[in-house]
Order: sequence, then C-alpha cells, then structure tokens
Amino acid sequence: MRKKVFQLIVDNTAGVLSRISGLFSRRGYNIESITAGVTADSRFTRITIVASGDDEILDQIEKQVAKLVDVRDIRELAPENSVYRELALIKVRTSSEQRQGVISMADIFRANIIDVAPDSLIVELTGDQAKIDAFISLLEGYEILELARTGIAGLGRGTDRVVYL
Amino acid sequence: MRKKVFQLIVDNTAGVLSRISGLFSRRGYNIESITAGVTADSRFTRITIVASGDDEILDQIEKQVAKLVDVRDIRELAPENSVYRELALIKVRTSSEQRQGVISMADIFRANIIDVAPDSLIVELTGDQAKIDAFISLLEGYEILELARTGIAGLGRGTDRVVYL
Repeated sequence: MRKKVFQLIVDNTAGVLSRISGLFSRRGYNIESITAGVTADSRFTRITIVASGDDEILDQIEKQVAKLVDVRDIRELAPENSVYRELALIKVRTSSEQRQGVISMADIFRANIIDVAPDSLIVELTGDQAKIDAFISLLEGYEILELARTGIAGLGRGTDRVVYL
Repeated sequence: MRKKVFQLIVDNTAGVLSRISGLFSRRGYNIESITAGVTADSRFTRITIVASGDDEILDQIEKQVAKLVDVRDIRELAPENSVYRELALIKVRTSSEQRQGVISMADIFRANIIDVAPDSLIVELTGDQAKIDAFISLLEGYEILELARTGIAGLGRGTDRVVYL
C-alpha cells in the first residue's frame, strides 16, 4: 500500500469530475482527497487526487484515466520534487478561559483565527497533511465542533510545467 | 443565476463523491468547485460544493442530493453567516530582477513563498475567492506557469454545528 498524489489537467466540462472519481470508485478505490480548480487558462481544470493502493493497480487506474477524452495529462507528483498544501477550517469549542490556549497554539502553527464567538472560534490552518494532522491531535483536550479540509493541491517544484497550463 | 455554497455531510464510502458530482452534471450543472475531507469523526466526510444556477433548479438538486443514501445532511452555507476559504499555489516565472516584485506583492497579501528556483517561484495564498482572483489579476505583468486551486472549504460562523460532525 502506497499513497500517490496525481496531477491531472482536464477539459473544463460538466461531468469530468464525476467520470474520473467514478473510475476510481468502480475499482473499489476510495479517493483520499480530490481538489479541482480552473487553471490560468480557463479552458482547463487542474485536479489533484490523493489515492492509496498497491502500485500495480494505481498504475492501471492512471492508464485508464489517461484514456478518458477530457483528460489532457495525468502524472504523479512525487514527494521529492513537489509541494503539497492543504487548508483546514477547525471550529473549536472554547470557554473564555480556554480561548487564549487555542490562540497560542494557532500562533505557533502560523494559523489564523477567522471567527470568534462567545464559546467557540474557527482556526484557519495551511500546511501539508502531517502539519494539519499534528495540529488536530494537539487539540485533543478541546472539543472540535466542526472540521472542513480542502484536500491537497500540489505543484511540481522548479520551473517545469505540464504542456497544457 | 446565483452562486450557492452547499455543505454536505456524507458517509465516508467509495463512490459517494462520484454519485454526488454525477447528479449535478446529469443536470448539466458544472460544479464550480468541490472539496472533501474526513471530519473529526472518520466515518463521515464533509463536502463543500460551489454551484451556480437559477434558484429553482439548485433547490431541486439539493433535494435530490438529500435523498442519496450516503448523504446525512445538505444545507446552504449562506454568505452572511459563513466563512469560506480557498488555497492557491501559483508558480510564476521570475527573472532575478522580477523576483523581489512578486515577493513584495505576496507580503501584502500575507502569502508565503514556498519554492524558489533560479527563474520561478511558487506562492501559497489563502483567502476567499475574491482575494485569490485579485492576487492573480495583479500578476498580469508576469507569466503564470502553473496554478493549482483547492476550491472552497466553508463553515458556518458561531458555535452551531450540524448533527453529524
């Protein structure tokens, strides 16, 4: 079992996301995360998929996805030459006594407080999955009311780029 | 035409993403963005969908999505009582003379430089869609090599939460 991050460039058409995620799920693979956004060229959408499985089957899926008409490019974003980032919004229940503790922890992680209510606050945190997991596990003494994660977006390091921007 | 942000709580099963995005695309609706991540309770996944269309049809889709077996909850995240955030990675071609200009602009937007190569750099930026669009349009004089956006994650303000965390 290995975790792979795939980068796809696809035509910006209705249904492309459904076809791609369907291809994974028909094989019984639960996509760990998928993010999608238009590229600088609005005809194309960039999709980042995190999936885990054994190498052979991930290779098979990669080949099948590559054959879909909407898919212009699929490649692995290997950890050694890529950056991955994820965004998380975390709503924590905080009494007035607890509030400063959470704020201090957020400071250490360079996170931002983006909403404060009398008995809760929302932390906005950016990082790789490990950093976000670390922050969440530090919150163990607190009650996490809600948690929204975007999933990973990634780019290859350096000046290279895929042909279809 | 109106843009709506939906928050879904779904069972963390293979194929749920495909079924939901398929429901939108069969109606000819291109989902503007979709993000998904496990909640604090790993049995459930939280999905944030941005879609635009006329009110009546968006209401219909909302009702149909609510009927899917995997879907525990769907509701609108109304702008007046929600926070939305998106993350973008932007690779910009920069000569050594241009580099400082991009770094200064990133500072103003509280963005981070997460990769520097001899003739490019990668900016990590967090904000609502308007902020990210504003930063990208400021980069007009530069060449954007690659752009990866996660799409929006959102939470309701205040202490309320949906029943299924």
